[in-house]
Amino acid sequence: MEAVGIDGLAVYFPKLHFEIESFSKFRGLEFSKLNKGLGLASMAIPDAHEDTATMGANACARLIDQNELLPEKIGRIYLGTESALDGAKPTATYILDMLEQKYASKYGKGCFSHCDVVDLTFACIGAIDAMHNTLDWVARGGVEENRLGIVVYSDIAKYDLNSTGEYTQGAGAGAVLISHQPRLMTIPDTWGVSTLAVHDFYKPKREVQIKTMVEDILDLAEEAGVKKTEGLVEKIVNLIPSSSKKENLLFQSHSVKIHKDTPVFNGQFSNRCYSNSVKSAFFNFRSKAMKKGRYNPEKDPVLTDEWSRIVVHLPYAFQGKRMLPDVFFFDRVNTADGDGIISKIGPYPLKTEYESLDSFEKAKDNYRRLISKTDLYQRFVESKIEKTQRASSLVGNQYTGSIFLALMSTLEADLNESSDLKNNKIGFCAYGSGAKAKVFEGIMQKGWESVVKKFDLFPRLKERYAIDAKTYQGLHRGSQKTSVIKPSAEFVLKSVGGTNVLEGHRKYTWID
Amino acid sequence: MEAVGIDGLAVYFPKLHFEIESFSKFRGLEFSKLNKGLGLASMAIPDAHEDTATMGANACARLIDQNELLPEKIGRIYLGTESALDGAKPTATYILDMLEQKYASKYGKGCFSHCDVVDLTFACIGAIDAMHNTLDWVARGGVEENRLGIVVYSDIAKYDLNSTGEYTQGAGAGAVLISHQPRLMTIPDTWGVSTLAVHDFYKPKREVQIKTMVEDILDLAEEAGVKKTEGLVEKIVNLIPSSSKKENLLFQSHSVKIHKDTPVFNGQFSNRCYSNSVKSAFFNFRSKAMKKGRYNPEKDPVLTDEWSRIVVHLPYAFQGKRMLPDVFFFDRVNTADGDGIISKIGPYPLKTEYESLDSFEKAKDNYRRLISKTDLYQRFVESKIEKTQRASSLVGNQYTGSIFLALMSTLEADLNESSDLKNNKIGFCAYGSGAKAKVFEGIMQKGWESVVKKFDLFPRLKERYAIDAKTYQGLHRGSQKTSVIKPSAEFVLKSVGGTNVLEGHRKYTWID
Repeated sequence: MEAVGIDGLAVYFPKLHFEIESFSKFRGLEFSKLNKGLGLASMAIPDAHEDTATMGANACARLIDQNELLPEKIGRIYLGTESALDGAKPTATYILDMLEQKYASKYGKGCFSHCDVVDLTFACIGAIDAMHNTLDWVARGGVEENRLGIVVYSDIAKYDLNSTGEYTQGAGAGAVLISHQPRLMTIPDTWGVSTLAVHDFYKPKREVQIKTMVEDILDLAEEAGVKKTEGLVEKIVNLIPSSSKKENLLFQSHSVKIHKDTPVFNGQFSNRCYSNSVKSAFFNFRSKAMKKGRYNPEKDPVLTDEWSRIVVHLPYAFQGKRMLPDVFFFDRVNTADGDGIISKIGPYPLKTEYESLDSFEKAKDNYRRLISKTDLYQRFVESKIEKTQRASSLVGNQYTGSIFLALMSTLEADLNESSDLKNNKIGFCAYGSGAKAKVFEGIMQKGWESVVKKFDLFPRLKERYAIDAKTYQGLHRGSQKTSVIKPSAEFVLKSVGGTNVLEGHRKYTWID
Repeated sequence: MEAVGIDGLAVYFPKLHFEIESFSKFRGLEFSKLNKGLGLASMAIPDAHEDTATMGANACARLIDQNELLPEKIGRIYLGTESALDGAKPTATYILDMLEQKYASKYGKGCFSHCDVVDLTFACIGAIDAMHNTLDWVARGGVEENRLGIVVYSDIAKYDLNSTGEYTQGAGAGAVLISHQPRLMTIPDTWGVSTLAVHDFYKPKREVQIKTMVEDILDLAEEAGVKKTEGLVEKIVNLIPSSSKKENLLFQSHSVKIHKDTPVFNGQFSNRCYSNSVKSAFFNFRSKAMKKGRYNPEKDPVLTDEWSRIVVHLPYAFQGKRMLPDVFFFDRVNTADGDGIISKIGPYPLKTEYESLDSFEKAKDNYRRLISKTDLYQRFVESKIEKTQRASSLVGNQYTGSIFLALMSTLEADLNESSDLKNNKIGFCAYGSGAKAKVFEGIMQKGWESVVKKFDLFPRLKERYAIDAKTYQGLHRGSQKTSVIKPSAEFVLKSVGGTNVLEGHRKYTWID
């Protein structure tokens, strides 16, 4: 039987981080609420020379070096990101450019010239999509072709200053090696999918009318003492088509589209979308697994019991355990455990019992809270989820990389604690706002420890540099233009072109 | 042997078009240069109610209706686009939302809820990447699972007013049905790939400093008669953090990122990237085909001779025939035809003979022009390429859809001319700026005519409404806010939300 899966994993995170304790003081928030309540300890913050592409390239280089991969053997590098740098040219080509720069001297110019690259975008699930497709591609080549593919993910989880998302920020990238006969885990071709078109979190191009822009700036000018005359705004807007300013970016259309790196989001609504989507994808997975003979409800009625660890998308450390009660409960319906829960906290709310959709949703929120407080659920979290949270606490949200960070977190912790994971099943619940969930599983291979030994995740996290609030604000607002820490042994953004055919042209280099 | 490929194709284009003759008059350009020189006859222009998502959804609905597809059987809808509407939420979810709205009454609420969707971005090759991956996914399921996937493409090829790209504009979308035992063509799993990180055409997020913006608007205010005082710009910039305007989109950071739908590009450089990439991908394809026993240089030395049609990315109608001389020539080196060309126009330029890379590139440009004038090449174009250009002439650039439009163009023309294409091979050369080329082939199936009969491409193109220059400008600049033609039997953009958690929230509906 075909066995394809993950043969190696490498993670990159910025050297800078902003500790949640400093953040809480800065914002006047209660540290224990963020730390004990959400599991937050620190957030990774990219330095001035970092972006989606440098982080992705750094992760790839680590994977290539650790596995001594020959560039010409790497058939594809697929990037999952929601922090793309361009609307047409994939950020993956910037990563390719850096890798080519670094490895050309060793492997020859053009050593990546037949490597297929592309960007996939679906909020926090884009990298899982990239992996799903890369598994198909590797599998289709058969053992004979022995295809090797890399999935990269890279994101900067940035929220507006003073917004409720601010403390869940983070950043980072990773690279996943997909191959036949993988050393870490195989991933069978059984995928539960759930898709629902919603606006729980998104990054629209926001339109600002030129007229509004002129008005706003003239209001400020008035505050600064300028006297505004009657009809001034209209006069200015009418001037534009004949003015020398008409070639200016701002004045070429009736309006400008502003891109913001920060999202529009509705946290509570997004939690509900997450929980419902994952539940739906879980049951889609279960029914597909049943058809394939992988799951037998007569013999082993509780599927989640077969998963030694459950690895889910973690926008913040404790989000996973907060989002899984539904899967936990419905997977146990009609078992002794399910009956035990119902006898303790009552039956699951029924839609018909509630007047509005909102009151029904609130009742479900409440029921999930009750489930999460049962001993049974707490033991479930302790054994299957807790270790996945540890790295997230220290890094924050990596968007599409968070689920991979959660995987690395538990595997490195399991290695340190000498867990015996060989042949164990790991469950995955991926989620991307907008929204889609995918549920699938991996089977740990006998050589897994040798792969995990190379992660060096927690020791590297200890070596980071903690920044203060002023530096944090400068990096967030973009006024900090120089590197906080002098770059070394990494790819950096060197410059961004400003004019004509080089406008916005990004240049990168490796710094020894 | 597995046989996966294209089972159906549906194209959508806006009902509006701007004829190149009107355009030439409007811009004072010579019509014959654009028409006879580049093959341009008209450009499709989206109406005020259209965008990437509506066009994609319209194409999908056409495909679903024509093939009577059951929504629950459609396992994925993968979108290739470089005109995405959001930075995180895939435009494919907007398409899904519209399809769900339209088909829920017939097939039930949630009929698409297990359909996997995502966006792929790589300039004009993103849809080919979506297809490549969907073929792998369908193949992997085997005949037993009988997976069905849809590849959608949708783009608006928009260039700055007065730019040299303006006459190559266009727009449109399409949907491609991928299945086992396809009725139209099978696509074997042999893909030539060439990747090169370049900036020939891209859509960067362009940064404008707040200070510059204030300066520019105050300059305009001065033109309008306002008296500027000393240090006014600094005063205004310093006011922002404490002003009520600080919550304004424009003032939240040190700079704003402007998204423009129009690209930064260098046409001549892009042509060279196109030509070199396609050549490199072609030879990559040829060597892979040789390894698989598909191509035998001893028996049939000229691979392109085996292709009845050659379908390539067409940013404008005549780009394909201008870009293929290298492939044509090098495919014939060491054959009688190759020798004939050399004896007529001399040998191909050698790098060592030129002082600079630029002079070498110019020499190659010139050699390609000489090849293109040979009888041999003109017969090659006439038989294999000419029919692919016809729809492009009438629609203009569809970016990632152009190659599919070229395919539909030749197949409908071939049907009308009763060509016998059964078992014939079709060559494909896809190109996306940034840059990547993919070369692959399809094998026409015995039922191909029944599929092509449904295209109804050229008759529908005749029914469009030609707009005048004023309407064109209004739509381009965004000042034309109402539909030029009242929508009917199509999806439309209904509204874009403006505030808080609904900021930029796009709503769509079907109009009967």
